[in-house]
Amino acid sequence: MARLSRLPGIGKKSALRIAYYILRADESYAAGLSAAVARLRSGVRNCPDCGNYTEETPCSICRDPARDAGLLCVVEQPQDVAALEATGEFSGLYHVLMGALSPLDGVGPRELTIGKLMERVRIHGVREVILATNPTVEGDTTALYIIKLLEPMGVKVSRLALGLPVGGDLEYADRLTLARSLRGRTVVGG
Amino acid sequence: MARLSRLPGIGKKSALRIAYYILRADESYAAGLSAAVARLRSGVRNCPDCGNYTEETPCSICRDPARDAGLLCVVEQPQDVAALEATGEFSGLYHVLMGALSPLDGVGPRELTIGKLMERVRIHGVREVILATNPTVEGDTTALYIIKLLEPMGVKVSRLALGLPVGGDLEYADRLTLARSLRGRTVVGG
Repeated sequence: MARLSRLPGIGKKSALRIAYYILRADESYAAGLSAAVARLRSGVRNCPDCGNYTEETPCSICRDPARDAGLLCVVEQPQDVAALEATGEFSGLYHVLMGALSPLDGVGPRELTIGKLMERVRIHGVREVILATNPTVEGDTTALYIIKLLEPMGVKVSRLALGLPVGGDLEYADRLTLARSLRGRTVVGG
Repeated sequence: MARLSRLPGIGKKSALRIAYYILRADESYAAGLSAAVARLRSGVRNCPDCGNYTEETPCSICRDPARDAGLLCVVEQPQDVAALEATGEFSGLYHVLMGALSPLDGVGPRELTIGKLMERVRIHGVREVILATNPTVEGDTTALYIIKLLEPMGVKVSRLALGLPVGGDLEYADRLTLARSLRGRTVVGG
């Protein structure tokens, strides 16, 4: 029960409901769930190259010869890789930092895979590093730190665009986002 | 009651609550509210130049000599002017279209102030037109229509940036926005 309610999005009530469900379901279901959880933890590891979760080594993205190894997209978490893959817009490789710099929480450069990132950029002929850390204080700090480290290497560095969401409304955009959207406007004619 | 509940965000229950409040308040409050509503409707008109709501003619933005008349920001509604002014990022003039093209709702180019916009661009030396219509189907259609009309005039035309909101999280961004954010990425180094 206590272990169930530690899962994200599951409170005490949901945990109780889940526990009752498992008790009522046939025995093979509980055994199957138990085995699946154990397998998840033992079978899934971090890709030694990009850091994404994988069952194979290296992961399917790193092994895919069709992907452009010259384009490296740096994200904070494995779930960001999933979000970017879902867009179908990116054909390069990823690098998962496993977090963002946050000195107050004790997360410094050594807690992240920044050293490994520098090694990958240096050894493989990376043309462009896309810093896709979140547009938050921590994500921006991390991006700035990496920009500084990459500077002497002469590699092109870019950052995801900030602006209005597709389908959104000016009236409901927050001030900072609207300001960035105005500053980052793109020429479409003339 | 029926008139009160037509106001945006006010349903039947809220209307009833407001009506009871007005009945209980002293008489001068009701008289004051009534006069304020009447004055709002009679005193506020559209600026003959930009179309924004104003009590003076022309509006305070159009009259301000410190604003850059060479930069014209085209928006759908007067409330969009307020949103952009709140960012403190824009020093040009505005043009309010009074809606967006929506053939199914019977809104064609003649229902909007597009003719007036062309006149303003032609007569005054406008360097850049920023199309700040909403990133929706109607807003995009309207922007495309205006781009076509402006093409022969040789004026620079731009569109607000699409992308992640400031402080946002990749994981929670919708697919289309994330794709635009990736396509519109900005070079920050190298």
